[in-house]
Amino acid sequence: MNETVSNGEELAFEFGVVIPRRVVQEKDAFSDMALVLVKEFEKVGFVVERVVGIADEFIKLAAPVETLGRAAVELQIKKQTLIGMDLQFEVEEVEAFVKQPDGSVFSWCERFQCYCHLLHKIVNNGKSSKILKFDGKEIHWEIGENLLQKLESENIVKQVFPLHDEKKRKKLLRSWALDWWDFTSQPIDEIYSYYGAKIAIYFAFLGMYTRWLLFPAAFGLMLQIIDFGSLKLVLLPAFFVMVILWAIMFCQFWKRKNSALLARWPISSIIAADPGYKIPGTRSLQPPMELMKVTESDGAKGKEVYQRYEWFGRLLRFRNDAIIIFSIICLQLPFELAYAHLYEVIDSDIMKFGLTAVYLFAIQYITQIGGKVSVKLIMYENNENTEKCADSLVYKVFGLYFMQTYIGIFYHALLHRNFSTLRKVLIQRLLLSEVLENLLENSLPYLKYSYKKYRVRHKKKNEKGEATESFQFTSRVEKEYLKPSYSASIGEELEDGLFDDFLELALQFGMILMFACAFPPAFAFAAVNNIMEIRTDALKLLAILRRPVPRAAATVGAWLNIFQFLIVMSICTNCALLAWLYDEDGKWKIEPGLAAILIMEHVLLLIKFGFSRLVPEEPAWVKANRAKHTTQAQDMCSKKLLRTISLGDKTYGEEKKLE
Amino acid sequence: MNETVSNGEELAFEFGVVIPRRVVQEKDAFSDMALVLVKEFEKVGFVVERVVGIADEFIKLAAPVETLGRAAVELQIKKQTLIGMDLQFEVEEVEAFVKQPDGSVFSWCERFQCYCHLLHKIVNNGKSSKILKFDGKEIHWEIGENLLQKLESENIVKQVFPLHDEKKRKKLLRSWALDWWDFTSQPIDEIYSYYGAKIAIYFAFLGMYTRWLLFPAAFGLMLQIIDFGSLKLVLLPAFFVMVILWAIMFCQFWKRKNSALLARWPISSIIAADPGYKIPGTRSLQPPMELMKVTESDGAKGKEVYQRYEWFGRLLRFRNDAIIIFSIICLQLPFELAYAHLYEVIDSDIMKFGLTAVYLFAIQYITQIGGKVSVKLIMYENNENTEKCADSLVYKVFGLYFMQTYIGIFYHALLHRNFSTLRKVLIQRLLLSEVLENLLENSLPYLKYSYKKYRVRHKKKNEKGEATESFQFTSRVEKEYLKPSYSASIGEELEDGLFDDFLELALQFGMILMFACAFPPAFAFAAVNNIMEIRTDALKLLAILRRPVPRAAATVGAWLNIFQFLIVMSICTNCALLAWLYDEDGKWKIEPGLAAILIMEHVLLLIKFGFSRLVPEEPAWVKANRAKHTTQAQDMCSKKLLRTISLGDKTYGEEKKLE
Repeated sequence: MNETVSNGEELAFEFGVVIPRRVVQEKDAFSDMALVLVKEFEKVGFVVERVVGIADEFIKLAAPVETLGRAAVELQIKKQTLIGMDLQFEVEEVEAFVKQPDGSVFSWCERFQCYCHLLHKIVNNGKSSKILKFDGKEIHWEIGENLLQKLESENIVKQVFPLHDEKKRKKLLRSWALDWWDFTSQPIDEIYSYYGAKIAIYFAFLGMYTRWLLFPAAFGLMLQIIDFGSLKLVLLPAFFVMVILWAIMFCQFWKRKNSALLARWPISSIIAADPGYKIPGTRSLQPPMELMKVTESDGAKGKEVYQRYEWFGRLLRFRNDAIIIFSIICLQLPFELAYAHLYEVIDSDIMKFGLTAVYLFAIQYITQIGGKVSVKLIMYENNENTEKCADSLVYKVFGLYFMQTYIGIFYHALLHRNFSTLRKVLIQRLLLSEVLENLLENSLPYLKYSYKKYRVRHKKKNEKGEATESFQFTSRVEKEYLKPSYSASIGEELEDGLFDDFLELALQFGMILMFACAFPPAFAFAAVNNIMEIRTDALKLLAILRRPVPRAAATVGAWLNIFQFLIVMSICTNCALLAWLYDEDGKWKIEPGLAAILIMEHVLLLIKFGFSRLVPEEPAWVKANRAKHTTQAQDMCSKKLLRTISLGDKTYGEEKKLE
Repeated sequence: MNETVSNGEELAFEFGVVIPRRVVQEKDAFSDMALVLVKEFEKVGFVVERVVGIADEFIKLAAPVETLGRAAVELQIKKQTLIGMDLQFEVEEVEAFVKQPDGSVFSWCERFQCYCHLLHKIVNNGKSSKILKFDGKEIHWEIGENLLQKLESENIVKQVFPLHDEKKRKKLLRSWALDWWDFTSQPIDEIYSYYGAKIAIYFAFLGMYTRWLLFPAAFGLMLQIIDFGSLKLVLLPAFFVMVILWAIMFCQFWKRKNSALLARWPISSIIAADPGYKIPGTRSLQPPMELMKVTESDGAKGKEVYQRYEWFGRLLRFRNDAIIIFSIICLQLPFELAYAHLYEVIDSDIMKFGLTAVYLFAIQYITQIGGKVSVKLIMYENNENTEKCADSLVYKVFGLYFMQTYIGIFYHALLHRNFSTLRKVLIQRLLLSEVLENLLENSLPYLKYSYKKYRVRHKKKNEKGEATESFQFTSRVEKEYLKPSYSASIGEELEDGLFDDFLELALQFGMILMFACAFPPAFAFAAVNNIMEIRTDALKLLAILRRPVPRAAATVGAWLNIFQFLIVMSICTNCALLAWLYDEDGKWKIEPGLAAILIMEHVLLLIKFGFSRLVPEEPAWVKANRAKHTTQAQDMCSKKLLRTISLGDKTYGEEKKLE
C-alpha cells in the first residue's frame, strides 16, 4: 500500500495489532472502527499496512525514524552521547548520540519502548465522545479515553505483539541458525541488533561456555577411555583441580567478555528497565514520592529516611529469602529424600517406574506453586527495577530446582557412597537432558503452533460448512500470530524464555562440575549437547516463536552468581567424593591423605575468591578505548561544556531565588 | 612584608624553600641569588615572605587563587563539575566546578600539585645566561635551564617542603588532637581539607574500627571475667562466630562509609596520581607511546597489542609476587621457625633474652632488605599509577610482616598445642605493641627533632665561639624545617608514614582475630590501644612532624584486602584452635564435634563471601543523592550540552577531513 522509503532504506513492520475478521462491513467510514484505528495510527506517525487473514485481520505498523524520534523525546529516553554521558534524546541533536553497530539511531529495545508509547497515546482529544462501530457492535469512545485500552477491554483488539523483520530474520537464519559448521561462533552483533542485548548476551555466554567446555571434555574422555591403572588415583585429583580452576577462570573471563561486548554496544548506563507494556501488574518501582520529597527538602533527614527505606527493603528481601529457604528445607527436602530412599529400597522395576511417574507429576506441581509464591513475595520487595525483580525470582526458583535436581544425587553419592548408582543416575540425567529436553523444547512450541493452525482451520470449515481444502495461511503475520511466544515455564510476570534456557545451562554446569570426580566424561556429553543447543535455540527463536519482547539488561544477571555458587559447592562436594573414594573402609580417620584433601579444598577456595582480584573484570583495552573516545569528545568541547554548565547553574540559582 | 588579602581571607603560606644563611652579603641586587629567586617567585604569582633563621634562610610562599587557577589550567587538572563529569579546569568557568567542603576551589592535593608546577616552571627565558652570586659562589643560569633544579643540584636550595598552616593547625589541635573526651569522633572534613583524602580516610577508618571494636571487647572481657564453668565450651564457639560475623560486617560497612565520605568530597574520579615532585625516580606510568599510537590508528590490531601489554604486565606482577612468596617461604620461614623452636627448647631466661635480641636485630635487617627488593621489583611492573604501585608494595611487604608476626604464634598454637604459651605470647605482643610502639612512634620523631635542634645550636656556637645561650628558635618555619617528615619505615619511594600506621592496625587486627578463641580479652586491649592511637597519631601529625605531602587516593587501598584476607585466615585458624581445644587427647578422629566445626567453617566462609552481595558497597542514599544532583544539573542544560557535543563532533569531523 503506502510502503514509504525513508533514508533510502525499506521500513520494516515491527508491530502487529490483531482484530477479528468482520462479518458485516460498515458503510460509514467515519464510524468504522478499523478505519478509525488505521487513521489514528497514521496520525501518530506510523506507516500502516492492513492484512486480512483467515480468521483475523491484522494491522501492521512501522515507524519511520522521525516518529520514533518524537516518541523518544516524549519518553525522555536517555541515550549515550559521544562524551560518554547519558543525556535525554533530542531530535535536532542526533549527531551527539552514539550510533548502533548497524548504523541506526535507536536500538530494538528503544524502538520497542517508542512503539508502546505511541500505541498508548492515542486518546480521544476531540470535543465529544465518538461512536465506533465494529461488526454490529457500538463502542463509545469517551473524551480523554485511551483507544487501544478501550478496545482491548472490549476484546476487539485481540493482541498487540512485535513482528519479525522478514529480511533480517532470513539473513540471521542463514548466517546463524543453519550455519551448523561454525560450531560455536555466532554473529553476536546482528543478534543484538535484532533481539536486543539480553538475548545476545545469552548466546555469547552459551558460545563461550561451549568453547571452553571442549578442553575439560577432552581431558575427561581421555581419563575414561585410557586405562591408567593405579595412576588413576593421582589423575583424578589432578582432574578435579584442573576442572575447578577451569570453572573459576571461565567465570572471570566471561565477565571480561561481557564488558568487551558492552563496549561495542551503546547501552545507556541507566538501564531503562520496565518495558511497561508487557507487565501491567507490577507497581511503580521508584521509591515512593514522599521519600523523594524528603530527600529534596532536607539533606540530613533525607539521608536517614533513605537509609531506613533501604534497610527495610533489605529486611523484606531477607525475610522472603528465609521463607523460601525454610520451606524448601522443610517441605521439599523430605519429599525428595523420601523419593530417593524409596528408589534405593524398591527392587521391582515396575514399581520404580510408577514411583518416578508419581514423582515427576508431583515435582512439576511443586515447582509451579514455588514459582507463584516467589512472584507473590517479590511483589512486596522494593527492587530497583524489573531486572532486579527478575534476578530475585531467579535466585528463589533456582533453590527449588537445585534441590529437585541434585538432592537425589547427593543422597546416592554422599550418604550411601554408592558410586555405581551415582554414575548411572548421572548418565541417565545427562542423556535425558540432552535428548529429551532439546526435543521437548523445540517440538512442544511447534506442536502448539500446529494445533492452533489446525483449530483455526477447523473452525472456519465448520462456519462455512464447506469441506474443501482451501484454507491456506498465506500471510506471514497471521502465521506469526499463531506462533507461541518466548515465555518462561514459571510464569510470564518477570521472566521470559531465557529463564528456561539459562536454567538448563546452570543445572548442567552443576551436574558436571559437582560430581566431576565421580564421572569425568560428563563434560564431553555436555559439550556435544551445547553445540547442538546453540543452533536449536537459534532455530527456535527464529522459526518457531514470535519475536520476543526485548529486555534492557545487558548482563547474565543472577545466573553468573549461581554459576559461582555452584563452583564453590563443587569444591566441597568433590573433596568429599575424593575423601570417600580414598577411604573405602569407612574408618572416618584423618590420615595424611584426608588432611591433604582438606588443605587442597582450602587452597582452591582461596583461589576461587582471590582470582577475581588478580584478573580485573574489564579488559585494559576496553578501558583505554572508552577513556580515549570520551576524553577526545570531552576535550573537544570542554570549554563550551563548562560555559553551559556554569550558565545553567546561574539560571538555576536565580530560579531558586525567585521561588 | 606584602601579606596580601584576597577574597577577604588571609593567605596562608603553604610552601617553604630553604637556603643556607649567608655570610657575605651581595651588593649587586641583580645578581644576588636570593633576591633573584624571590623576584622570580613573585613573577610567577607567589606571595613571598623571607625569614632569616639561626642556621638557614627561608622563603615562605603563598599562592592566591588566581595563581593557582593559572597553574591548574596549565597542568590541565581535571575537576568534578556540577553535572558529575570531570572536565579540565578553566579560570573563567569556576562556577561549573564543585566546591570543596570548606568553600575553596582547590583541595590541598590540587594546591600542592599547582605549587610544584609553579616552582618548577621558573626557567631562564632571557636571551643570555645569567650569573647569580651566592655567598661568594657564582652560578651560571643557562638559557632554558630550570632555576630550582639548578640550585638544588648546586646544593644551594637545601629543601622545598610544604608548610603547616598555623591557624588551621591550631584549630585542629584543639578540636581533634587534644579533644580526648570524644573517644572516637573526629572532625573528618577538616582533616580532609588540611591533609588531603588519604590521611582523612585513615583516621575515619581508625575511628570506625575503634568504635566497632567496643562490642567484641565487652563480650571478650565478659568471657574472661565471669566464670561460666562448663558453659564456657559452648560460649567459646559462640564468641568465635560472633567475632567473625562482626569482622565481615565491619569490612562491608567500612566500604559503605568510605563511599559516603567520598560523596561528601569532590574528588576527581580519574585520581590524579603522581604528585611528581616527591618521586623523581619513577618512570612514566602511562602505557608506552607506541602503544597509544597503535590504539589510535587501528581498532582490531590496537586491541590485540593492548591485550598483550596487559597480560605481559600481569605476568610480570605474578612473577614478582611469586619471587616474594617463594623467598619468604624458603628464607624467612625456616629462620622464624628456628627461632620459635629454640625459644621453646631453651630453658635459661638469659639465653632466651639474648636469642630474642639477636632475632630482633636480624629481623629488622631482613625486613629492610625485603622492602628494598620489593621496591626494585615493582619498578619493573607496569602499574597504572603510583597508588597502584604503593598497593603492590604493601601486599609484598605485608607478606614479610605476616610471617614475622604470626609464624611464631602459629608454631605455639597449632603444632605444639601449647595454649598457655600462646596466651603468654599474645599478651606480651599486645602489651608491647600498645605501650612500646605508641611510645616509640611518638618519641622517636621528637627525639630526632630535638637532636637536630641541638646540633644546629651546637654548630652555631662553635662557629661563633661564644658560650651564651642566645640561640632560640624564634621562627616557626625553621622549627618545621628541623622536624622529621612523615615517612615510612620501609623507604620513602612509594609510601609515606601511613604505611606504618596501617601496618600496626592490620597486625593488631590479625592478632586479635586469628587467635580469638585462645584469648578473648585481646579485643579489650586493642580497643584501649586504638582510642589512644587516634589522639597520639593526630598529635604526631600536627605537632611533631612536618606537614605531609598529600596523596590523591581516597580509599584504604590494599589494606582492606589484607583485612579481608585476615578474616578468611582467622576462620580457618579459629576452627583449628576449637578442634584442638575439644580434642584434648589428640586422637585425630572425626567425631560429631569435629564434623560440626568443619561445617561451621564452611558456613562462615560462605557468609564471608556472600555478605558482600547482600549489602551493597554504596548506600542507597549516596546513590540517590548523586543521581539527583547530577541529573538536575544535566537536565538543566541538556539541550545546550547536546548542541555543544554535536557541534564539537562536526568540527572534529571536518578537522579530520582537512588532515
